[in-house]
Amino acid sequence: MNKVAVIFGGMSYEHEISIVSAIAMKKVIKKELIFIFIDQYREFYLIPSEKMKSTLFSKGEYQKETKLQISSGGFYRKGLFSNTKIEFDIALNLIHGQDGEDGTLASVFNFFGIDFIGPRTEASVLSFNKYITKMYASSCGVKTIEYEKIDKSNRDIKTISYPMIIKPCRLGSSIGVSIIKDAKELEYALDVAFEFDEDVIVEPFIQGVKEYNLAGTMTNEAIVYSIVEEPQKEEFLDFDKKYLDFARSEQTSSAAIEDSLVQKLRNSFKAIYEPLFIGAIIRCDFFVIDGEVYLNEINPIPGSMANYLFEDFNKLISDIVLPKSKKIKINYEYVNKIKSAKGKL
Amino acid sequence: MNKVAVIFGGMSYEHEISIVSAIAMKKVIKKELIFIFIDQYREFYLIPSEKMKSTLFSKGEYQKETKLQISSGGFYRKGLFSNTKIEFDIALNLIHGQDGEDGTLASVFNFFGIDFIGPRTEASVLSFNKYITKMYASSCGVKTIEYEKIDKSNRDIKTISYPMIIKPCRLGSSIGVSIIKDAKELEYALDVAFEFDEDVIVEPFIQGVKEYNLAGTMTNEAIVYSIVEEPQKEEFLDFDKKYLDFARSEQTSSAAIEDSLVQKLRNSFKAIYEPLFIGAIIRCDFFVIDGEVYLNEINPIPGSMANYLFEDFNKLISDIVLPKSKKIKINYEYVNKIKSAKGKL
Repeated sequence: MNKVAVIFGGMSYEHEISIVSAIAMKKVIKKELIFIFIDQYREFYLIPSEKMKSTLFSKGEYQKETKLQISSGGFYRKGLFSNTKIEFDIALNLIHGQDGEDGTLASVFNFFGIDFIGPRTEASVLSFNKYITKMYASSCGVKTIEYEKIDKSNRDIKTISYPMIIKPCRLGSSIGVSIIKDAKELEYALDVAFEFDEDVIVEPFIQGVKEYNLAGTMTNEAIVYSIVEEPQKEEFLDFDKKYLDFARSEQTSSAAIEDSLVQKLRNSFKAIYEPLFIGAIIRCDFFVIDGEVYLNEINPIPGSMANYLFEDFNKLISDIVLPKSKKIKINYEYVNKIKSAKGKL
Repeated sequence: MNKVAVIFGGMSYEHEISIVSAIAMKKVIKKELIFIFIDQYREFYLIPSEKMKSTLFSKGEYQKETKLQISSGGFYRKGLFSNTKIEFDIALNLIHGQDGEDGTLASVFNFFGIDFIGPRTEASVLSFNKYITKMYASSCGVKTIEYEKIDKSNRDIKTISYPMIIKPCRLGSSIGVSIIKDAKELEYALDVAFEFDEDVIVEPFIQGVKEYNLAGTMTNEAIVYSIVEEPQKEEFLDFDKKYLDFARSEQTSSAAIEDSLVQKLRNSFKAIYEPLFIGAIIRCDFFVIDGEVYLNEINPIPGSMANYLFEDFNKLISDIVLPKSKKIKINYEYVNKIKSAKGKL
């Protein structure tokens, strides 16, 4: 893999985060990069690498760049007489939130036969919605902390007590998330969360809980794990603070924890990752309570691809294994059979 | 809704079933129909209504018809100087199995802003994989019968006893499904199932269990339910027999059951349907054991749209409610903020 197409932007609350992640890739990936931007109207643009600055997008100047069309086999630049295919070895789905992480782009790439790094449709749906993630984790034998799902028509919280954390089910990067200490703050926090999603998940907020992040991907039959990071936190990383995180390109240092805990975290990561997430570089955020590992969330397209957690991110990109997509041959055996059974259709 | 585009075919083991379903729609839907065929290579063709016969496809003659391109807002016919949009009010996703029911087509339609009848991406993923359906049903408070999931690397069945039914997790129409009475038949049945899927689900086969099918869809704030059908069965409907079912266009008669059971079936249907499946006409197949309702499977794109179960299928098509897709406006607030925080990116 020498030529990587970075796909970024998208119709997503995290559109801007994706731009920041994509710019970070310029420093991180030592391969030829093609930048393909999806604007908020879902039009595709080819952005020259030297123009990859955030203002190109915020000022709308990207619209002067070459527009692309997606079609069978890849992206095409329209020509006067024929279309030219944009050549690359693999696409990197770097769209956070809607479009990128909800299965939309995975499906579009799959449909048009474009090889890509990122979660597949099923993996996306199981990790995008925090409520479904709880079900999935439990089916993998990985614990999660207690929770309650509420929706607009039923905002009553029955089992969780204060302090609690309120999250829209289908957003990342802390958008719409609140920590509330008592009932006074509840209604406003719910209004905020329901601005972003029909479904909201409520969990106890555990003061001072230990958090550890671990990323990884499947390469030639074995998972390569990142170092374990203990994210710095003030009480809670809000959107602005997390946002700055997406521009990270320098390696961070390992959490000072025992090998046995590293092993427990890896076991939980593996249970979540395999085989659903094959083809993606994901980061799992865990809580550790009394020595037990709990999944907090799955980031199937982490900020700046969690590059800062890996020793050799470029090798990872080269070695990643993609799942085989199911090619089905149609032989019309049954149309022929039914014709003889039912006569002329 | 006066003009309906029927989308059929797809890269699916049920490609041919989809063709039969589409031909059945000619008799069923009293509206102007546009037929758009997706061939096994995922190319789009506009098929004139009068040519809608199964041999057009089995003989490959469809390739002489007009090729279409999908792009922002719809399907386009290529012209010498410009492309012409194919006009219709709504698309009907009639692709069974892979592509149609696994979330791929839903995502593609969503991405390109095409209104359609059919399950959305999340609904597709939760109903396509029989194992995930079990988790989903349980989260809705709907019972399912006991099961065990196995995969290629671990074919041991620990909790289910004979007779049992073996099903690939991600296929419909009984493809790859076997009922086995004893251990002698096990290995072959597993080999067959693993031909089609990496994951297989095993359930007890309950001789003589009562089966009831119920279809429905959301129209203007209320679900319209079909009649309850008790499917005729010989021991088990195999692919060939079910296949003939997809050509059905005549109304069937209601099962002779008590109103209280109808109500129970409707309650279970509603719990499954709402809000996940809004925009789709689905059929739920239930078992009833000792008066208790168990979900067997969800067909989010049932054969011939289960038209034969509805009193007025045409009204249903006109009245169906579609979910609002989330339009997100990007204002580049954070790119501006981060620029001042971090300097030039």
